[in-house]
Amino acid sequence: MAGVAVGMLTVPQAVAYALLAGLPAQAGLYACLAPMVIHALLSSSRQLIVGPVAIAALMVASTVGQHAAAYSDAYLGITTVLSLQVGVILILLRALQVGGIVNLLSHPVISGFVNGAAVVIIISQLAPLTGIATTSRVDDGAVDRIVLLVRFVTEVNPTAIALGVGSLLLMAAVRRWGPALVRSGAKVGGDGDVRHALGRTGPVLVTVLGTAVVAGFGLDVGVVGSVPAGLPELTLPLLDAQLWWDLAPNAVLIALVAFVESYSIGKTLAARQRRRIDSHQELLALGAANIGASLSGAYPVAGSFSRSSVNYASGARTPASALVCAVIIVLTLLWLTPLFANLPHAVLAAVVIVAVYELADFRSVVRDWRFYRGDVLTHFATFAGVLLAGVEAGLLIGVGISVVLFMRGSARPHIAVVGRLGDTPHFRNVKRYEVRTWSHLVAARVDESFYFANADTLESRLAELVDNPEGMPEDGDSAGGQAVEHLLIIMSAVNFIDTTGLEMLQRLTHRLARRDVAVHFCEIKGPVRDQLEHVAVDEWLTGRVFQTTDDAFNTLTEAAGKWIWRDVPANTRD
Amino acid sequence: MAGVAVGMLTVPQAVAYALLAGLPAQAGLYACLAPMVIHALLSSSRQLIVGPVAIAALMVASTVGQHAAAYSDAYLGITTVLSLQVGVILILLRALQVGGIVNLLSHPVISGFVNGAAVVIIISQLAPLTGIATTSRVDDGAVDRIVLLVRFVTEVNPTAIALGVGSLLLMAAVRRWGPALVRSGAKVGGDGDVRHALGRTGPVLVTVLGTAVVAGFGLDVGVVGSVPAGLPELTLPLLDAQLWWDLAPNAVLIALVAFVESYSIGKTLAARQRRRIDSHQELLALGAANIGASLSGAYPVAGSFSRSSVNYASGARTPASALVCAVIIVLTLLWLTPLFANLPHAVLAAVVIVAVYELADFRSVVRDWRFYRGDVLTHFATFAGVLLAGVEAGLLIGVGISVVLFMRGSARPHIAVVGRLGDTPHFRNVKRYEVRTWSHLVAARVDESFYFANADTLESRLAELVDNPEGMPEDGDSAGGQAVEHLLIIMSAVNFIDTTGLEMLQRLTHRLARRDVAVHFCEIKGPVRDQLEHVAVDEWLTGRVFQTTDDAFNTLTEAAGKWIWRDVPANTRD
Repeated sequence: MAGVAVGMLTVPQAVAYALLAGLPAQAGLYACLAPMVIHALLSSSRQLIVGPVAIAALMVASTVGQHAAAYSDAYLGITTVLSLQVGVILILLRALQVGGIVNLLSHPVISGFVNGAAVVIIISQLAPLTGIATTSRVDDGAVDRIVLLVRFVTEVNPTAIALGVGSLLLMAAVRRWGPALVRSGAKVGGDGDVRHALGRTGPVLVTVLGTAVVAGFGLDVGVVGSVPAGLPELTLPLLDAQLWWDLAPNAVLIALVAFVESYSIGKTLAARQRRRIDSHQELLALGAANIGASLSGAYPVAGSFSRSSVNYASGARTPASALVCAVIIVLTLLWLTPLFANLPHAVLAAVVIVAVYELADFRSVVRDWRFYRGDVLTHFATFAGVLLAGVEAGLLIGVGISVVLFMRGSARPHIAVVGRLGDTPHFRNVKRYEVRTWSHLVAARVDESFYFANADTLESRLAELVDNPEGMPEDGDSAGGQAVEHLLIIMSAVNFIDTTGLEMLQRLTHRLARRDVAVHFCEIKGPVRDQLEHVAVDEWLTGRVFQTTDDAFNTLTEAAGKWIWRDVPANTRD
Repeated sequence: MAGVAVGMLTVPQAVAYALLAGLPAQAGLYACLAPMVIHALLSSSRQLIVGPVAIAALMVASTVGQHAAAYSDAYLGITTVLSLQVGVILILLRALQVGGIVNLLSHPVISGFVNGAAVVIIISQLAPLTGIATTSRVDDGAVDRIVLLVRFVTEVNPTAIALGVGSLLLMAAVRRWGPALVRSGAKVGGDGDVRHALGRTGPVLVTVLGTAVVAGFGLDVGVVGSVPAGLPELTLPLLDAQLWWDLAPNAVLIALVAFVESYSIGKTLAARQRRRIDSHQELLALGAANIGASLSGAYPVAGSFSRSSVNYASGARTPASALVCAVIIVLTLLWLTPLFANLPHAVLAAVVIVAVYELADFRSVVRDWRFYRGDVLTHFATFAGVLLAGVEAGLLIGVGISVVLFMRGSARPHIAVVGRLGDTPHFRNVKRYEVRTWSHLVAARVDESFYFANADTLESRLAELVDNPEGMPEDGDSAGGQAVEHLLIIMSAVNFIDTTGLEMLQRLTHRLARRDVAVHFCEIKGPVRDQLEHVAVDEWLTGRVFQTTDDAFNTLTEAAGKWIWRDVPANTRD
């Protein structure tokens, strides 16, 4: 039953996304056969449905539109090359064990990208929705499309608008009140989730109604037209080295986005059943599905959020539902293709708009703002990049900014000067807690590893702390105003030290030695301790290495003013 | 006296580096006038000498050589544009407060770059050293040059080889035994450092001797030829938008390298006198010096390691020595230029080889290997990049690899399962210490911030720890074999959490709740605590937030098996 439900939803979406991608309607249906079946057989997820999706369609249009005219045979030929590359790249990621690279597509990058793509897609659907026959190309950006819409605004077709807006309203109504119909009636299948699936029947409804109305009244609107009946034939990709080279960068981006989307949907659905899915297996399954797409005249596929949700909600518990869905597609291809002749573009545009509207999510940005502002910046940079510079550029901008912000954060680390909390063995930031400090001892907890991007900053700031222990209350045991004699660096948050960081520590120690300040370390973690064993800390450190901050404070404060320096080798005092 | 010493060393170096850069000999001398004086007046360093240097000369050759033939007027015109851009970029870095970007040039990137450049320069000097008149261009890479050398190997000039190799041997001898001459004689200036300066007189000696031998015996070798007498005239840079645009990326790289080299030399010398130099002021001073170079027909300048060292060693304590040095250059330009007519290329090649040989440092790589292997990889990637792909590409490869390695490290963080050290309030890794653990409690210290690159990995690994507490000895108080009920995440090394990390924590908590495992946090640092205040931890965390690991262990182990979960909201247990 889940398979039938998904199959019915799949047909209108597959046709609509194929047109969005610049491909003939049947290419969308082909994308639901071989790829979906291959994926269902290989995937570790039981409910994930792959096939044509809006985001991948947009990326295909943006890539292939630069090489050929949409809806042409050449365009389809290039698309099959792109599908093959996407599949091969996914399998290579698995084989080389570098699937972790998808983690660079962080949550804000993906959400900014999906939101931007949703807006671009909705804008691209305004022309078919209103019956405007613009001259826009499938790879036009959002700005170009708006310019064209405004220029041709007088050519709107009232019939198309009526069909399109009517479809939007009907789908909204089904989404809103559809589930309630079941609640009041008898139990259907005994699973409350089925109400969720019922709310998703809008696209099927408007497709059937729209086709019937156009056929019945002979309306004058843009329609899909004739679609060849029959199953896909084996297609072999073009062997054109230059083309392969040109497409490869975009294929990498499509592969990454397709995988991230599929994996996150699969993970969410699996978690609801206390199951896990295996990222390695998913790379293989999606890679094989895309190679299948390439060989059967389809285009790059990914996990579909709406169809997978319906599949889960309709009670699918095994991949068998995907096979049932495939049977529905086969039946459609064999006997129902004549019906597409009267399927209006305006209705398909409405189907696409509703689907991508559900993908977009701007609400989480508000929460993100309070939690971590860098992510909001990344989100909007990606979003704006997709709208203004195109989908691929937007994605790269997002990844670039998230890496730069991360580096920038760790390049300006937080340093807390700490003191003893009462008589406990615990130490806290002097700015946040009432703690005891001693004026001859500065204890600084550095909240970052010592490495090249922050070594210079840390050196200056630690040296400055010794000159001017910021806001350190001098309520310790010893007399105030005493000169600083010890700098204790608390390394509880230092996860590694690189050679630039090591040189900095040596230079800082050397520099402070000239001012009669000894440098001590404490709370060094295992991996860093292992590192330091190779560099003879004894020979250059002017102070000592303590296990805990507590030990260090006990030793350094009991001996206040009486601390004897260890012999400092001549070269460090020189 | 320091000024005279530096001036004498400057003359041969300036001429040699000018030829290396593809410029006429006088351009090198001009680079020691306006730029050096401007820098001396503005810099916060008292001993740093800027002017023509080998690395910058190589970068100029590699950049300008692509646009014009070396030693032509067009070449010089393009070089002045490049100098102006380098100056403007340095001042912009200061004005926009983004000088921190130079920290991306980490220690291994710089040393790999300098080593690679040294090898490229030495290879480039083999032709003049042996008198081969190759057809190589100044922007040829190391591989091209070697091919040309082999092809023209039969055209070596024995006289040139004799002069070149003789110069190398003489300079090596002076470097080795020069200082000893003073030790045995009377005190000169009373400063032991002067011996160091004496070891550096080799270049002057071979220049004078080489010129005298060629002039005296009328030898047939390549010579510098006529150099116009007189001071530089004001030159205005070309205004060609396309050229400016083409040069800009290389100007950025030259500016960064010039600054990093100058700043690190200045910092080292200042530290010897317990002084500091100001990076902001140095950006301004070097920027102004380069603009001065542009306006006086010179080429991009940077801090010279050899001349600054001689300046320091000869007792320079104020920038006045730079002014004395400038006077020597003026005198040379006014009256000594006829002498260059007989200065052999082979001798200058030897001078360059000795200078860059001293810059190269491969020994530190061995120490780095034991301390932090990633840096060795970065070093060799940069080195190989410079040799095989060119100076600019090599530098970018190095920066890229160091960023990738850093991200990769933080994407695979260290997680330590900890236990109580005896009866102390201290907790240590179960794999490194004899500690007490309890089988129903897994306490994991995550040694990295929770962010997009590691969220997925951390989720899997923490979930796995609960399934299979790796190597946890069960020598605690409670009975062994008990199922895990609590996961305590120790956040002492978590410096921030981004939204991807937050979602991971929520998903993990949710997932473990289904398996009746409560998640607790402890040791949260101030900045992270501030972040978590915005996301209602109470509502989704199934366990508690403890101040210290000690508190958490006390509470969770005393209540072993009797821990009552806080009410978990319906949506997280769904």
